Amino acid sequence: MIGIGIDIGATNTKIIAITKTGKLLKEFRLRTLPGKGCSKFIRKLSEIIKTWKSEYGRNLKSIGIGVAGDIDPEKGIIRFSPNLGWRNINIVKPIEKVTNLKCFVENDANMAAWGAFVFDLNRKSKNVITITLGTGIGSGIIINGQLYHGSTGSAGEVGHTKIFSNGERCSCGAYGCLEAYIGSYAIIKRAKKSIKNLKAFINKYSLNFPKKLNTICIKNAADNNDKTALKIWLETGLMLGQGLANAILILNPDCLVFTGGVSKASKYILKGVKHIFFKQKIVTPFKHLKIIVSKTADLGSIGAALYGIEHTK
Amino acid sequence: MIGIGIDIGATNTKIIAITKTGKLLKEFRLRTLPGKGCSKFIRKLSEIIKTWKSEYGRNLKSIGIGVAGDIDPEKGIIRFSPNLGWRNINIVKPIEKVTNLKCFVENDANMAAWGAFVFDLNRKSKNVITITLGTGIGSGIIINGQLYHGSTGSAGEVGHTKIFSNGERCSCGAYGCLEAYIGSYAIIKRAKKSIKNLKAFINKYSLNFPKKLNTICIKNAADNNDKTALKIWLETGLMLGQGLANAILILNPDCLVFTGGVSKASKYILKGVKHIFFKQKIVTPFKHLKIIVSKTADLGSIGAALYGIEHTK
Repeated sequence: MIGIGIDIGATNTKIIAITKTGKLLKEFRLRTLPGKGCSKFIRKLSEIIKTWKSEYGRNLKSIGIGVAGDIDPEKGIIRFSPNLGWRNINIVKPIEKVTNLKCFVENDANMAAWGAFVFDLNRKSKNVITITLGTGIGSGIIINGQLYHGSTGSAGEVGHTKIFSNGERCSCGAYGCLEAYIGSYAIIKRAKKSIKNLKAFINKYSLNFPKKLNTICIKNAADNNDKTALKIWLETGLMLGQGLANAILILNPDCLVFTGGVSKASKYILKGVKHIFFKQKIVTPFKHLKIIVSKTADLGSIGAALYGIEHTK
Repeated sequence: MIGIGIDIGATNTKIIAITKTGKLLKEFRLRTLPGKGCSKFIRKLSEIIKTWKSEYGRNLKSIGIGVAGDIDPEKGIIRFSPNLGWRNINIVKPIEKVTNLKCFVENDANMAAWGAFVFDLNRKSKNVITITLGTGIGSGIIINGQLYHGSTGSAGEVGHTKIFSNGERCSCGAYGCLEAYIGSYAIIKRAKKSIKNLKAFINKYSLNFPKKLNTICIKNAADNNDKTALKIWLETGLMLGQGLANAILILNPDCLVFTGGVSKASKYILKGVKHIFFKQKIVTPFKHLKIIVSKTADLGSIGAALYGIEHTK
């Protein structure tokens, strides 16, 4: 059995075909160009899938799509994706019509959570929170071995829970959200304030061309024992720990999985997270909690493909 | 089919027998006297149940017990109940041995949540958060029509999620917990600070003998349009709303149920709660949320009885 997994990002869309056991057969990157509207994009996507279908034949059963934003998985609708600027787009129906394959859409962090559950945890933890650390803070929840959508597909908005009252403004428009402190832009903003000689720092630690300050650069500095960088990551971990502590007190999961680009610095971030967890007074949910960092790149598209396969008979 | 429901409080223990459809057959109050140890209490409880069993015969199938604190429902153990001062008490086994009835123990707020789900909602909402407003802030979660325990039976500790960083000290020992602001003692403490002529206030609004300041008194003052009382309840609602908003962003329930003694003032509290919900920037989970106040007194014991019946074949 083969499934297609699609991760729609604001710049690129990743399309993969994998087997039920997670073997990657094919991958393709497509420019999303969201400003040009969704109809053209959906047509293009459907055409690619049709070509792949003619290649894999009856073995190809399903399509799973992950999109950042407010998704209605039941109706197959993107209610609102801030990154793409799309509102009320029925993405499932037109793709199903053209490809004649069962199609599912979910919030991208939900798809990553499914990927972590099947791929990283081999379904051994039943209640899991997966945190995707990147520009935004995504989160997906597995309960009793099933992806938990909540009542409107909106469950798992850990990134928009408040860690400070009247705090920093978040991209969502609210104040004090976890994401406003530990999303990659927020980390870089804090770094810019605390690094004394920014030019020298970038010159020394940036791996980009042109050289610039990003989370990879700050991670690289930490690898080189730069004290400011280590402090930035510790603070990030302490704030993340605070947000996650609330989620853990509510959900009492077996396991917490970190993924996403910024999780490359998890070695440093986890120090802060664990410090907060260790200080908790309600000890049981923290004492029994397993914490892992996903080793799987592209959990979003892999999770989407596996989710589609799982839910297609 | 008949089930026994037991709600163990620090002062009194309530025991009821009800039918599967919730008809109350019998009730009894027992002094808990937790300082005298648990063995004597469990023996006494078992003896009462045995007498009831001889009365109801084979129709009596199960026992459900709710206790405030850290409970291991799988092993039937009270890990720690701060109110009772009991640690690592296996309560299920000795009761099952003496009574020969299937017995379940859960956190009391979980049992109340089950009661709200079956009794108040008639199982029509599938994902529910029930908040018990009292001395402490209890919370129980229903997911996909089942009580959600979490991995160690600790799920639903909404009362100990943080609404302020470095805030007031909570009874759990941590700082800034929701309970430290809206538990009944916290409400009374705030009231004492803001009521100008406390003696006159108590004299006018207390219904107790001897007259004293409690949440009933403050509720009564609000009923009489006392501006300070209305302000106290509004503030309570705003803080509760903040804590609940985080829980709703994570769990995206269909329905929120309020119960517990302090929910008698919900008419005033809900103004603040709804104000916070209305201001949220992630709108979908709040737009579709139903909010109700339970009309059922003693949801704890009723929920416990119904939970026992539900889980006994």
